This record gives sequence, C-alpha cells and structure tokens, in this order.
Amino acid sequence: KTNEQRLWNSLMEMGEIGGTEKGGCCRLALTDLDKQARDLFTEWCEAAGCTVRVDKIGNVFARRPGKNNDLPPVVMGSHIDTQPTGGKFDGVYGVLSGLEVIRTLNDNNIETDHPIEASIWTNEEGSRFAPAMVASGVFAGVFDLEYGLSRADLDGKTMGEELQRIGYAGEHEVGSPVKAFFEAHIEQGPILEEEETSIGVVTDAQGQRWYEVTLTGQEAHAGPTPMLRRKDALLGASKIVQEVNNIGLANQPNACSTVGLLQVFPNSRNVIPGEVFFTIDFRHPNDDVLSKMDQQLRDVCAKIADEMGLEMKFEQIWYSPPVPFNTSCVDSVRQAAEDAGYSHRDIVSGAGHDACYIARVAPTGMVFVPCENGISHNEEENAKPEDLHAGCNVLLQAVLNQACL
Amino acid sequence: KTNEQRLWNSLMEMGEIGGTEKGGCCRLALTDLDKQARDLFTEWCEAAGCTVRVDKIGNVFARRPGKNNDLPPVVMGSHIDTQPTGGKFDGVYGVLSGLEVIRTLNDNNIETDHPIEASIWTNEEGSRFAPAMVASGVFAGVFDLEYGLSRADLDGKTMGEELQRIGYAGEHEVGSPVKAFFEAHIEQGPILEEEETSIGVVTDAQGQRWYEVTLTGQEAHAGPTPMLRRKDALLGASKIVQEVNNIGLANQPNACSTVGLLQVFPNSRNVIPGEVFFTIDFRHPNDDVLSKMDQQLRDVCAKIADEMGLEMKFEQIWYSPPVPFNTSCVDSVRQAAEDAGYSHRDIVSGAGHDACYIARVAPTGMVFVPCENGISHNEEENAKPEDLHAGCNVLLQAVLNQACL
Ligand SMILES: NC(=O)NCCC(=O)O
Ligand SMILES: NC(=O)NCCC(=O)O
Repeated sequence: KTNEQRLWNSLMEMGEIGGTEKGGCCRLALTDLDKQARDLFTEWCEAAGCTVRVDKIGNVFARRPGKNNDLPPVVMGSHIDTQPTGGKFDGVYGVLSGLEVIRTLNDNNIETDHPIEASIWTNEEGSRFAPAMVASGVFAGVFDLEYGLSRADLDGKTMGEELQRIGYAGEHEVGSPVKAFFEAHIEQGPILEEEETSIGVVTDAQGQRWYEVTLTGQEAHAGPTPMLRRKDALLGASKIVQEVNNIGLANQPNACSTVGLLQVFPNSRNVIPGEVFFTIDFRHPNDDVLSKMDQQLRDVCAKIADEMGLEMKFEQIWYSPPVPFNTSCVDSVRQAAEDAGYSHRDIVSGAGHDACYIARVAPTGMVFVPCENGISHNEEENAKPEDLHAGCNVLLQAVLNQACL
Repeated sequence: KTNEQRLWNSLMEMGEIGGTEKGGCCRLALTDLDKQARDLFTEWCEAAGCTVRVDKIGNVFARRPGKNNDLPPVVMGSHIDTQPTGGKFDGVYGVLSGLEVIRTLNDNNIETDHPIEASIWTNEEGSRFAPAMVASGVFAGVFDLEYGLSRADLDGKTMGEELQRIGYAGEHEVGSPVKAFFEAHIEQGPILEEEETSIGVVTDAQGQRWYEVTLTGQEAHAGPTPMLRRKDALLGASKIVQEVNNIGLANQPNACSTVGLLQVFPNSRNVIPGEVFFTIDFRHPNDDVLSKMDQQLRDVCAKIADEMGLEMKFEQIWYSPPVPFNTSCVDSVRQAAEDAGYSHRDIVSGAGHDACYIARVAPTGMVFVPCENGISHNEEENAKPEDLHAGCNVLLQAVLNQACL
C-alpha cells in the first residue's frame, strides 16, 4: 500500500507553487512557476533514486530501473500545468501518485521486470497554449514536433521559446516504446461523488472539437451611429454564444458546448465592437453526434454572420476523437480496485487527458477518484486524502500487474 | 478667412503622433503620446504669441490677449486624446481650428476686446478612463477634482498619477469665468454628408447613461460539467448584449444602445466563464425616453441574472442629461455659416462633447462638419480639407461675434 500522508504532503507542497489566496493554483504552462514545479519533481525523483530525462517538447520522465532495462517501461503520469483558476489536484495528482508508487516500491524493495517511470507531460491544459494535450500528442505522433514547438499564447510567445527560457527544452527525441501507460486523475465531474464510489475505471474518453472564430464588423461611434447602420461584431458573437449553448442542449444526453474565451476589439465603452475573437469547445462520447454538432455549428455561424453582414473566419483548430482505452489496462485497473475492496464503477471521461493520446501508441488505462461537487478548473477544486490514496493504491497494483512478466 | 492648408498641415502633423498603419490615430489619454501632442500644441501656441497655462486636471489653455484682459476669454477647443481605433480629426480638429483662428487673427492684426483662448480638455473620450468628458466636467463643477484625479484605467492607474507622470498636473485651479465657448468637431454621424451640407449648427446634444455590469457564475470544466449544472457568466452576458440591442431598437427613432467593452474571466478555452465584466452605453435626445430605457435595462438584467442563477453587480456610472446649447452662441454659428454662404442645417449631436459640460457654466455653441460615411472611432475616419476649412471660418466669425463688444 502507498503512503496516504506522504502523497498528501507532496500534493500540498507542490500546490504552493502557484498557490492562490482562494486555495487554488495558477501555474500556467511554461511559466516560471511551471519551471519551479518541474525542478521540485526532479529533485524528489532523484532523491528516490530515479534518473530523469527531458525530451524536446519538455516532457519529463523519471525512471526507476527494472530487472531488465531493455524492456520498455511502464509509465505513469499526467501534467502539472493548471488553468488560470485551477486547483491543487487536476493533473498534479497523476504525477505525484506516480512518484508515490515509486517511493512505495522503494520502501518495500520491490523489483519489477520492466522499468517504471513517472512522467510530466507539457501543456496539457490547453489554456496558455492551444490545443490541450499538445506534448503527449507529439509523443504519440499525432502532432509534429514543429507544430508543438510553434504553439503560441495570446501574446505570441511560443512553446519552443518558453521551453528554452525555462531550461526544459530537453535533448531527447520525443516518443519511445512504452509497455503500458496509466494516468490517475480526479474525475472533474459529479458522478463518483454522487454515487459514493471511490474508484472510476475509465473505459473511454469523449471526443472533442475546438474552434476559433473571428467576426469582423465595423468600429463606429456608439453615440451618433444609428442602430440600423451598425455592424456590431459583439452582437454577432453573443448570438453565436447562445447558439453554441443551444446545440449542447439539443444533443443531450452527454453533449457539452462552451465558449470559454472571448476578446473584443477595440474594447472601448463608446465604440461599437469591430472585431471579436472567441473559441468554442464541443464534446461528445459518440463521434457521430460530435460530427452532427459540428455541422449544426457551421450552419448557424454562417447564417448569423451572413444576416448581420459580418465577415467571419471560422476554423476547427483541434479534433480529438473519442478514445476507447486498452482492455487489458482497463481490466488491470478494475481488478486492482476489486482486489482492494474499493467501490468502483466504469466511467467515461468528460475531459481530455494525456492518456488519450498515449493510448494511440501504448496500452493505456486511467484511474479516476471523486472530487468535491465535481468541480475543477476552479480554485475551489478539492479532493479527499483517502480517495486520493485509494486511487494511488489502484495505480500501484495496476502498474505491478503490467510491469511484472 | 482662415488658412485651409495651414490647418490641414497642422492636423496631419499632429496625427503622426500616435498615427497607425491604417491611417488612423491611437493616442490614449495621458499616455506618452498624449504628452507629445500636448507639447507640440504648446510649442505652436507659444510661437503664435500665446501664454499657455495648465490646470490641476491637465486642461491646457493658450491665451491670445484682448484689448481688455480683465474680461473673461472667449474659449475654443476640444480634446486630443483618441480611441484605441481613433482617427486624425475627432477632437483634435476642434483644438487646431482654435489655433488656426488665433493664427488668422495674428495674420490680420485683429485685436479683440475679450482675450481669446484655444484649449485642450483632458480625457474626453472616456476610453482609457471612464466616464467621458471628465476634465471639462470638473471645470464645470459637475465632478469634484478628486473624482477626476481618481478615475482609473483597467490596469488601476489613475488620471492623477498619469498627469504627474507626463508633467501635465498643472498648478492652476480648475474652473474660471468664460465669456463664451465654441467647439468645432466632425459630425461623427452620416447626416451632413448625406444631405451635402457643409455646416451643422448644433442646437442640442443627446443624453447618455453609462453602466458597468459584473455577472458572477461558477468556473467549471467545459468537458465533464453537464449543461444543466452550469452557471455560465458569458452565456448570461450574451443574453444581456442581445437585450441591450433590443432596447435600442424598441426606442427608435434616435435611441442608441451599445455594449462596447466586455472582459471574460478566467478567459480559458476549456473553462466555463466564471465572471464577465461589461459596459453599456445608452443615448437618447429625450430624457424621458432615456429614463424609460434605463428602467427596461434594469428589469431585463435582473430577470436574466435571476433566471440563470448568476450574481449581478449593476451600476450606472454616468448620467449626462440632454444639453440645449446657448441660443446666442447657436445664432452666432448659424449667422456665420449664412454670411459665408455655406450650406448649413441645425443638428443634434449624437456624441458627447466637452461643450456639453462647459455649457453649464458658460454660453456655448458647436460647429459640425461632415465626415466620410459618418464614421468615427475608427481608423478609417476621414474629412475633407474644404469642409474643415469651412468649419474653421464659421468658428472664427462666431468667436469674433462674441469677443468684440
Ligand atoms: N483534464 C483536463 O482538465 N484536461 C484539459 C483538457 C480538456 O479540456 O479536456
Ligand atoms: N466626441 C466623442 O467622440 N466623444 C466621446 C464621448 C462620447 O462617447 O460621446
């Protein structure tokens, strides 16, 4: 069994890097805070006897040798970047429960056949740099390295530049054989908590489509410009925000649709907005429904832009299809929960995870634990030490199951 | 007659300070560019024999002595700050046509009884610091000096701090007797151009109400958070944007209603927006209709916030009632246009102007000239040299009419 208190203490110590007054964490990808958190993880892993390597997209791998180091490793991990209003568990729990598994193996002098690794994947959140899961995507060959390094934030700074700046542009090629990959994560939804279940055995992750839309009208004076002569880009955008919501509602159950980011130009009180840039996030576990939502969105955006005389640039910038996880890995997770006597249920992930991309190149599974009120991407995000501990124990057993011949 | 080419050249030279690639001007209030423009105006006025003084809110007055300098001055002027996407004429035309009048009086050795002044009023646009017309408002006693100096931009910098920083926190008390005030300005609306009329004799300005609204919902993950559990502040704001537009349409003719500024927090693609801050600008020439619009807005905002379970902070931050200009000054403008043989018509200003506040403490009139397609607060703002010249000639005659006993 893993050490509940040690895992909790590590989470709390790491959570101070970027910790906010409200008890959350703001540690955007490739900022100085991200560097500090990476440094601390590296220090802890080296103290646990691991060798740490960094690849060209900044992914960090801490290796505990196995009996046969020519065998591919069993890898655990997640991300340590957060949302601007993030919490202390989303992502970092998967990284530090990996470290806790390694510490526990050390405590018990357990030798595995395969080497074991705990990993950090760069820029999973997709908040500072879009899309999400960029670096696990490069690892899985979904994206080119150049694509990954050229992702830019709203100020135009690229991931490549920022990796250089914080000293995490590693020398290792991105991508290498993996025996199995496991990611422990808070659920980020309400199901486990409501059903008073400790472990979510993640069988699938829903699909996503992300869009960027720019509407261009005409800046003009809010006072002397008659209502019927206006080309108000914000009025158009606000209609699309409504329709995005309507499409989500029309495709229940399970559809989600969100406008999370919106910028107005010139953003002046007495100027009719000339340009609005905004993003759309669509999700559904069924790829056909996701395609239908895509078509509905394209139709309604074109209609609104046309009716209002606005120019529109509409781009789908990301498509991540629904992911079925590997049966053997899913079984390892379910069996581990069962053996430990934890209540568990199969569950579909509402969020994207690095595991979704790694699943393309290695057998992959995920372990979910409940979080308070199902809330994440919010400074109030919270989870119970005993649930985190249960998830970590399941991770340990699932890993052992795959790492021993 | 004033000198068309000299006026145009001055406008073009001043327009380079903050000049944009698209031919517009971005010279926000109390920035380094505003300082540069103030310095240039001061230099030009001193070269024209004027004495320049600055008051405690940064208003600049360049005085050409009259026969009797104990008499209150006839003052001309406007502002030199612009919108982020501003043009080369809005405001600065009223300042530099004042200077052109003084230069013309010098050329012709004309002595007036009253002294004559050309003026710059600080932060008229209300874009960097809200509300608009702050410093002419302080001059007119509508606002306290403390209120004016404490206006803050979105970064929290105050007008007082920024005046100090650029060296335009003058020592003169704000407010002094004025014989008459005249402001020349581009129309900023389509009427004069469409009617092929050179001069707008401004009889009134419409009333305005400005609001600030903050909607607070709950940040949550865009993926695993079911549609019906959301408190999406942007969805609420976008409904209000629609209703603001509907209120404008429902109060035609003449009503204008605009959401020009909107900020989303945390503004991340995969986070349901937890907070949205936005502004509303309402206008109508009839104060009763403006009050009716105000009530409609309050009702609809409360309803939407309530239905969506959002917290709302709603504040009217500015009310500027409709302004009737002084009959004697309006007559001076009309007579000057008539005498010079310019086509003219009476017109109501859709925009607010420093003249609206000065009208409370001195007889005040305004001269409008056409601008291209009625467009302003846009880098494409444009006006014809001959129209600007006509307006300047009308200004000269109206001023002489008031400045000679
Ligand atoms: N787990 C998580 O919050 N991932 C961010 C990517 C997404 O939006 O699904
Ligand atoms: N003239 C002008 O653009 N003034 C700005 C204040 C307003 O919004 O009316």
